[in-house]
Amino acid sequence: MARTGTLIEAVMTDIESKIASRAYLPNTRLPSVRAQAKAMQVSVSTVVEAYDRLVAEGSIVSRPGAGFYTSGHIAPLDLNQIGPKVAREIDPLWVSKESLEAAPDSLMPGCGWLPSEWLYQTGIKRALRHLARSNSPNLTEYASPKGSLAFRQFLQRRLLGLNIEASSEQIMLTESGTHAIDLIGRFLLSPGDTVLVDDPCYFNFHALLKAHRVNIVGIPYTPNGPDIECFERALAEYQPRLYLTNSGVHNPTGAHLSHSVAHRLLTLAKASELVIVEDDIFADLETTRAPRLAALDGLDQVIEIGSFSKTVSASVRCGYIAAKRDWIEQLVDLKIATTFSGNRLDSEIVLQTLTDSGYRKHMEKLHGWLAKQRISVSKQLISLGIEPWIQPKDGMFLWCRLSTGTNATQLAQDCLSKGVVLAPGNVFSQSQSAHDYLRFNVAQCTDPKIFDVLKIALRQQI
Amino acid sequence: MARTGTLIEAVMTDIESKIASRAYLPNTRLPSVRAQAKAMQVSVSTVVEAYDRLVAEGSIVSRPGAGFYTSGHIAPLDLNQIGPKVAREIDPLWVSKESLEAAPDSLMPGCGWLPSEWLYQTGIKRALRHLARSNSPNLTEYASPKGSLAFRQFLQRRLLGLNIEASSEQIMLTESGTHAIDLIGRFLLSPGDTVLVDDPCYFNFHALLKAHRVNIVGIPYTPNGPDIECFERALAEYQPRLYLTNSGVHNPTGAHLSHSVAHRLLTLAKASELVIVEDDIFADLETTRAPRLAALDGLDQVIEIGSFSKTVSASVRCGYIAAKRDWIEQLVDLKIATTFSGNRLDSEIVLQTLTDSGYRKHMEKLHGWLAKQRISVSKQLISLGIEPWIQPKDGMFLWCRLSTGTNATQLAQDCLSKGVVLAPGNVFSQSQSAHDYLRFNVAQCTDPKIFDVLKIALRQQI
Repeated sequence: MARTGTLIEAVMTDIESKIASRAYLPNTRLPSVRAQAKAMQVSVSTVVEAYDRLVAEGSIVSRPGAGFYTSGHIAPLDLNQIGPKVAREIDPLWVSKESLEAAPDSLMPGCGWLPSEWLYQTGIKRALRHLARSNSPNLTEYASPKGSLAFRQFLQRRLLGLNIEASSEQIMLTESGTHAIDLIGRFLLSPGDTVLVDDPCYFNFHALLKAHRVNIVGIPYTPNGPDIECFERALAEYQPRLYLTNSGVHNPTGAHLSHSVAHRLLTLAKASELVIVEDDIFADLETTRAPRLAALDGLDQVIEIGSFSKTVSASVRCGYIAAKRDWIEQLVDLKIATTFSGNRLDSEIVLQTLTDSGYRKHMEKLHGWLAKQRISVSKQLISLGIEPWIQPKDGMFLWCRLSTGTNATQLAQDCLSKGVVLAPGNVFSQSQSAHDYLRFNVAQCTDPKIFDVLKIALRQQI
Repeated sequence: MARTGTLIEAVMTDIESKIASRAYLPNTRLPSVRAQAKAMQVSVSTVVEAYDRLVAEGSIVSRPGAGFYTSGHIAPLDLNQIGPKVAREIDPLWVSKESLEAAPDSLMPGCGWLPSEWLYQTGIKRALRHLARSNSPNLTEYASPKGSLAFRQFLQRRLLGLNIEASSEQIMLTESGTHAIDLIGRFLLSPGDTVLVDDPCYFNFHALLKAHRVNIVGIPYTPNGPDIECFERALAEYQPRLYLTNSGVHNPTGAHLSHSVAHRLLTLAKASELVIVEDDIFADLETTRAPRLAALDGLDQVIEIGSFSKTVSASVRCGYIAAKRDWIEQLVDLKIATTFSGNRLDSEIVLQTLTDSGYRKHMEKLHGWLAKQRISVSKQLISLGIEPWIQPKDGMFLWCRLSTGTNATQLAQDCLSKGVVLAPGNVFSQSQSAHDYLRFNVAQCTDPKIFDVLKIALRQQI
């Protein structure tokens, strides 16, 4: 059916996209014509015409005396249909797949993990040999609902070192850090809720939150944490349900939350119903301790999660959630219902590796390598006119600004064709305001070819 | 506020439970007073009074000119608040936790897995030793989006052995069988959809589907598969989105789908929009091949899933989904968004174990052990007046009926206090019509104490 009349068409498109993204669920009553007209600031007759045409097209049905309803069955959930269309180079799912599928000889200065040879492989191998010699139930049996008690007791001590007090009953193991956030999302969020993230933030937060069909609002990130005035305004404007952030080393900026921002943030959260999820995935890369919101809050409104995929292994999956006791009990039920049991063998390998006497020494060496690389890579980037936003104290990331007029997305396209995978700024930015930024992983920048390719690609852009 | 008037109170309770279970989402318009009255078959004035009181209690808000809305924030998702309250002995989540947390010296004739020593531990240990000697990216690096190509090619050949044609691009690895079903649920289902399950069926299907907030309808299971007349009526009455079943050995009955029921089932499904998920978790326990719906259908409306937790290890997590190509692509996106990457090390251990030359021989021995135990346990149960519903050809389960007047839930309570964990029939039954059934796992029935405890508990019931 041909569509005429800009307003009617706009109303139809808006409703169809709400159906596609499941903002309107199937078999659900649409707002009344009057309410819809008010909400969309169009006339009642425009909505009447739009509804009638959508009925004719089969997208919605009219139930006499009861109003208009979405039709029964909808297309399967397609994450690519949710939210505005963006270039694939800044689409979180495309970037993830590109990194995960990259050919073994690709250069990946944009990727978010350490090269294999920088990880403590000796410890993992020792754990495997040890398990191969045992007749332990760890080899074959289901995990207990919360996961290994020994691991939870280890995490209890580890959290105490961050001034977070949690009993082992307040800790649950998960398959990964992402799985931890996903479970919390299923527990706390409903479609249409608002979630605050840092802008920029880890890009898979965007994809994950899309799958929960929530509104994502980015809070500008400063070198000391989220911009507290923006945070306060967002609380008032959106009544967000959740704020999802990194503790310790921030991804992608490498910044640390300051004590004063942490305190103000938590004071604001306390005055609202906001829950904060603090993702502590980079804890073992920290060289100076940033404050943890969960330590200040005592695991009341703050949930601490983490994993070891950045420091032990990304192939051996193990994450955790620390939260208040009754939430953990409900999260355990949700975990059983949706995964039945955790990956017990993986958690045992990770625990043995973390408690191996060589792990701490390996981390110290790793800190040294990273410090050296941060300086070396900074220098090389600066010589190309690419300026680090800050000089991070620790971690693997450099968040860098391109010189005026250079477009990071275009640069990423050009470099990809030469086998160099970059991470353009807007993939991290909900507001799409980081078009002239790139995230570099200094540990993945040891090959001089990266800088040669960058140099040529930058020259072509001018 | 005191509640008077039975009907008003009933309407209020119904609405409150819909809010608690998220059938009504937060910040969402309630049905109009007129529509609600019609739906609940009460007068308009009853609904007006119920809405007014709910506004006074703060559960809903009135927006002048726009109707009544659920309020903004809701309590976290509590699976125990969804659906009718049942005794803990037949509550799927309670039974799962009881089995997963059971003390090492408990006797567990009701549990759904094999004892460790019946599994192929030699193969798992060999895989661990082999990996410990390697410098493989399997130790530390993220999995590719679909998971190991070698594993997917192995599954391709394996599926072909079941007459299911799937390319390796139509297969995606998951963390487990439950994770596979959960991803498909997130992909295809919306809250309020109807899903058909077998009655009885694997009890965690109930808990899983609760987490998706769908209506669950049970189809009586016969020794040849689901009752086809009931299936046809349910299709007409509920327009279900999904039918979730076992292929091969059925849990809990040990029955096989017959060729004629498979054909009629699929013919009915083809005439509707129904998607069928076939969980092939017991494939390696089959001694005579049952038909696979996915083989008849060619992975059009049928999705095949499986895992190796019953035959390789429950501690090493690995499952898979085989489906049509475009669905797999969208499921990959959903997997990345919600778990980022799969457990690569686990999938490598499982692949090495499955392709170890000793695996097939071990399975043959296992088939012999199970056959012997099915006969021995049947005899002992019959002598106690507990009758197997059928004599299964294969697998570990005996679905048994108690003599008249005996209540399985009560029996489970009595035996639990003596350290014997049973699986009472109603935990498997959506219609709660299996109060006089128990599921026995013959592999967990080697200790004569089980039958002594049963004998005494049965005597006490009379």
